[in-house]
Amino acid sequence: MEIIEFTPTRDQYAYTFGGVEPVLSIEPGTVLRLWSEDAFNHALTSVDDLSSEKVDLGFVNPQTGPFHVKGADPGDTLAIHVVDLSPARSWGASAAIPFFGGLTGTDRTVNLQDALPDTTWIYEVDAAANTVRFEARFGDFTADLPMNPMLGTVGVAPAGGEVRSSLVPERFGGNMDSPEVRAGTTVFLGVNVDGALFSLGDGHYRQGEGEACGTAVEGAMNSTIIVELIKGRAPMWPRLETDGYWMAVGSSRPMEDSWRIAQVEMVRWYEELFGLHHMDAYQLLSQTTEVPIANVVDVNYSVVVKAAKALMPRVDAFDGVHAELRNRARAL
Amino acid sequence: MEIIEFTPTRDQYAYTFGGVEPVLSIEPGTVLRLWSEDAFNHALTSVDDLSSEKVDLGFVNPQTGPFHVKGADPGDTLAIHVVDLSPARSWGASAAIPFFGGLTGTDRTVNLQDALPDTTWIYEVDAAANTVRFEARFGDFTADLPMNPMLGTVGVAPAGGEVRSSLVPERFGGNMDSPEVRAGTTVFLGVNVDGALFSLGDGHYRQGEGEACGTAVEGAMNSTIIVELIKGRAPMWPRLETDGYWMAVGSSRPMEDSWRIAQVEMVRWYEELFGLHHMDAYQLLSQTTEVPIANVVDVNYSVVVKAAKALMPRVDAFDGVHAELRNRARAL
Amino acid sequence: MEIIEFTPTRDQYAYTFGGVEPVLSIEPGTVLRLWSEDAFNHALTSVDDLSSEKVDLGFVNPQTGPFHVKGADPGDTLAIHVVDLSPARSWGASAAIPFFGGLTGTDRTVNLQDALPDTTWIYEVDAAANTVRFEARFGDFTADLPMNPMLGTVGVAPAGGEVRSSLVPERFGGNMDSPEVRAGTTVFLGVNVDGALFSLGDGHYRQGEGEACGTAVEGAMNSTIIVELIKGRAPMWPRLETDGYWMAVGSSRPMEDSWRIAQVEMVRWYEELFGLHHMDAYQLLSQTTEVPIANVVDVNYSVVVKAAKALMPRVDAFDGVHAELRNRARAL
Amino acid sequence: MEIIEFTPTRDQYAYTFGGVEPVLSIEPGTVLRLWSEDAFNHALTSVDDLSSEKVDLGFVNPQTGPFHVKGADPGDTLAIHVVDLSPARSWGASAAIPFFGGLTGTDRTVNLQDALPDTTWIYEVDAAANTVRFEARFGDFTADLPMNPMLGTVGVAPAGGEVRSSLVPERFGGNMDSPEVRAGTTVFLGVNVDGALFSLGDGHYRQGEGEACGTAVEGAMNSTIIVELIKGRAPMWPRLETDGYWMAVGSSRPMEDSWRIAQVEMVRWYEELFGLHHMDAYQLLSQTTEVPIANVVDVNYSVVVKAAKALMPRVDAFDGVHAELRNRARAL
Repeated sequence: MEIIEFTPTRDQYAYTFGGVEPVLSIEPGTVLRLWSEDAFNHALTSVDDLSSEKVDLGFVNPQTGPFHVKGADPGDTLAIHVVDLSPARSWGASAAIPFFGGLTGTDRTVNLQDALPDTTWIYEVDAAANTVRFEARFGDFTADLPMNPMLGTVGVAPAGGEVRSSLVPERFGGNMDSPEVRAGTTVFLGVNVDGALFSLGDGHYRQGEGEACGTAVEGAMNSTIIVELIKGRAPMWPRLETDGYWMAVGSSRPMEDSWRIAQVEMVRWYEELFGLHHMDAYQLLSQTTEVPIANVVDVNYSVVVKAAKALMPRVDAFDGVHAELRNRARAL
Repeated sequence: MEIIEFTPTRDQYAYTFGGVEPVLSIEPGTVLRLWSEDAFNHALTSVDDLSSEKVDLGFVNPQTGPFHVKGADPGDTLAIHVVDLSPARSWGASAAIPFFGGLTGTDRTVNLQDALPDTTWIYEVDAAANTVRFEARFGDFTADLPMNPMLGTVGVAPAGGEVRSSLVPERFGGNMDSPEVRAGTTVFLGVNVDGALFSLGDGHYRQGEGEACGTAVEGAMNSTIIVELIKGRAPMWPRLETDGYWMAVGSSRPMEDSWRIAQVEMVRWYEELFGLHHMDAYQLLSQTTEVPIANVVDVNYSVVVKAAKALMPRVDAFDGVHAELRNRARAL
Repeated sequence: MEIIEFTPTRDQYAYTFGGVEPVLSIEPGTVLRLWSEDAFNHALTSVDDLSSEKVDLGFVNPQTGPFHVKGADPGDTLAIHVVDLSPARSWGASAAIPFFGGLTGTDRTVNLQDALPDTTWIYEVDAAANTVRFEARFGDFTADLPMNPMLGTVGVAPAGGEVRSSLVPERFGGNMDSPEVRAGTTVFLGVNVDGALFSLGDGHYRQGEGEACGTAVEGAMNSTIIVELIKGRAPMWPRLETDGYWMAVGSSRPMEDSWRIAQVEMVRWYEELFGLHHMDAYQLLSQTTEVPIANVVDVNYSVVVKAAKALMPRVDAFDGVHAELRNRARAL
Repeated sequence: MEIIEFTPTRDQYAYTFGGVEPVLSIEPGTVLRLWSEDAFNHALTSVDDLSSEKVDLGFVNPQTGPFHVKGADPGDTLAIHVVDLSPARSWGASAAIPFFGGLTGTDRTVNLQDALPDTTWIYEVDAAANTVRFEARFGDFTADLPMNPMLGTVGVAPAGGEVRSSLVPERFGGNMDSPEVRAGTTVFLGVNVDGALFSLGDGHYRQGEGEACGTAVEGAMNSTIIVELIKGRAPMWPRLETDGYWMAVGSSRPMEDSWRIAQVEMVRWYEELFGLHHMDAYQLLSQTTEVPIANVVDVNYSVVVKAAKALMPRVDAFDGVHAELRNRARAL
């Protein structure tokens, strides 16, 4: 198993899915140890750094990549298994960026009200306790919160020659901002272009579902992943697998459409996995899915539909690649 | 502690919140043991009973109640603690009602496509195993699913003289269809009219988040609840409390508005509980909430925002009434 | 032709559709000359009257009515022909009510931003010029705008025993806030309860499409209408007819659903009028409809789909009742 | 005044905004006479040509262009004046593409229902009468409809390095599908990249507002336009001007956000044009705008907010460039 380490130089940061030359070409099966910068390009390092002065929303979520996967053709399926996510700094940052976030007017849900106060929070990491510390900016309150590292973005180049900002979650993955993309998860993405051209970034030391204020505890991240290729069988929308769940992620607006997308993707997956008629899959999933919101703040809103394996007969998705990747990960 | 048992006669079924005379007037602190009919008025008893023939969506979710709570005035808070939910029949029913549900056109998201096939599923209860059995209608597949009894509807009379169908989730509670309304949960609802006039029904033996096909495993239910009254302090939207979580439920359309409502309600609650500035509450909840969807199929869509108590300093909401009700429940 | 004049006393103002005893019972064919109070209950009479102090959104749009129409049964169609609308005062009022309107957070699209400044505008009527005068509140600008009287609300009692605020546009009509409800228009509403129980109010001396700030040039109004009854043939959603157009009004959220509702209602109407297959009606209307937004500020958003009669063969809708009512109106 | 004629070869068709090399570099002030292919790439030439077999939604709306405008820098404003639109064929085509359009489930508003029947309509042009003929596919009905040529798409390269499909309406213009883009209209677009790189296409011989079924009377078009450059002053979203109206176009989802965008853009424009405070502009426009829907079928939905010049004092937008372009157009 080849192991490649890669840390991008600043001029290698990618701010789009598609439209960027690959930084490396790798074989399927490669283990990558990647470093990614935080969503703010390291521009917010103290509570005195204001996003309105230091952050350009046209260039956030710097991506590490893209990587060209040899042999990946349109219609194939890229399986990205997250082995480990480790904070690469001793602090993370979060911000209420003016006119960005879920509880404010935005560039889309435009209003004439004044912006919320531009505010930055810094979370110190306590590595021993495995926590990050929230410190109130308008009072003395503090709270130590468990570390829960995840990747906000993982995606491939879009179809149809499109190039999308690294703020966008879509059919190609991207900025889904789901806490489900953590160590132990396999992400399945349909390949749209030769080599797939996947990238990742936007590490979060911790994030609530919805990412209400628009930003998580953003931090530079060391990610260890295994990249595998499945010929054909591209899912329509991103699918995830953990030891306990099969999942699909829908990203659109309004949010009920994000849900419809993810729910239908799970119906289709259950048809494949269990040979069910779509009406029976629809019914069965209606009684069994867990449905956490991922983000309500990005260019599209993301919803995750989760189906617990424990409720169902044992079957292998994608020929058992997730279990196999788990084994390979343990051997690292 | 007074304990009252009540089973409505068929002509006592209420199909609206508001607009119905109370069946009983009770003292705060009363324990109620209630029976409620299933959402379909017991019209679907075999897979051959079709909802298009036997169900009128203008009259579903028959409510048990309403109950008049002595001393409850507008602006007060009704605390309904769910002590126990037990299936009252040995089977439950679910249906894909034509043009109702999340993965079909509806009376709102209207389209010109043909309806999905009108289909009914019957789930047999295995009381010993505490499961319900899914049986495919278009194949041989079966699956035994854990029982997880919940109430689809619990609500009070609306404000402003409105009367709403028992299909509606709103500020007054109602048809929220959240699995969080289970044994052990306290529901806090703002009182709008003299006596509050609360009712409940729509028992589900089990439901996935989203209630995708529009109906759960619907079944008659025996509910034991304790009804308490808190003078004043009415929340804007329904709040829930369990031993592990504080929660708020937003219900509107599109679904991002349901989320906004619930998330802001939690911000306001955190301001109260911890004396936080709203910007700090916004930030802290952004990193800590869990956000399951409740329903994407009703007149309004419902989203639950959950804040884990374990992450926060110990405080008492509503003067600790939840803990006290838990104690009273244990003593029953 | 019986002509009845009616001006409600203050305690007769109705604030809901449904849930109110009729003020009068009338024969089909009756001409009504009605006075209605402005949306603010006459509470804003100068720019110093602030809506946050004087307006309770639970009780606005006071309705004149409801009227019981003899012989009207559920499933019938009420045809309300607007003969004349004349301002009943020499001024109108408009307001940017805090957290109400299209370009601000609301109780649904909740945000944490500060409210827009609570502002009232008074428009003087120039009866000779038939204009109202806009006077800037934050500068010296003035503009004389043509009078264009319309009724914001006209509706019947809802189905299913519901009672809805006079702020609500729905299947039963209500607060549609469409400038198309002007002199010369016939409004067709499906009857839900014995006697139909229709009411009207919310006179606007002028309103832009969308009613962006949440309120029009609100004013007391003298309305002359003819009320006719068509047995059976209830449309699913409100239909309008003028000499030039057939129209349907959809009211829901999100706004694309309002549009879907209205567009499908027109497809169904074209199937009836021209014997078209629904695919042909869908296609033909795709190339011919005009689609103005009515409101983006009420409990539901309203969209009007208009089909020009001039593009189509001559046919009579509802047996030509609109033309006949126009003739009767001319004879008054 | 330089006049350039340009007809793309098939391999010059562009299917994206951005990401394509310019076909020509032109001076500001140039008159272009352009030919554009129909939205279907000429694939539907009879009612027997089915879109499911012949149309790939990844490659529709072939663009003529892009054109590089000398001296155009980011932050500048491109003014594209439409002088004349003339059908380039004697027939147009329309289609109900499976799972595309407003009254069907789509790839976003996904459902499990069967698709509507894949249907193609051909409209013959009667040049003398200046009409197109609708012929029913499921019956004998015909209707002659006035020709009303318009451009579905006109746009520039997006900001932030994005590349978007020619199906997308956005801040950069694109597939707005508004009948307001007709002869006599000036379109103002903010420049995002050096040379602006604008293109146009998707000619419609006629279209109803909303473009309900997803396609208009699609046809090859001869377009005469004048391209002018205004240094700086880039509007946030597309603005249009005719002799009678100032307009803004918002494109997003859900549709209320499209409206918010366009309405705020008009508030900002009125602040500029009349020196109004934003609250006064908000109020004044609330009483005066006309708000037709453009499309409810594309990747974003488009809404047009129109402000009639006749209601306002005479002012010049963008230093009167529209009037000047009208004069230049008359001189051609």
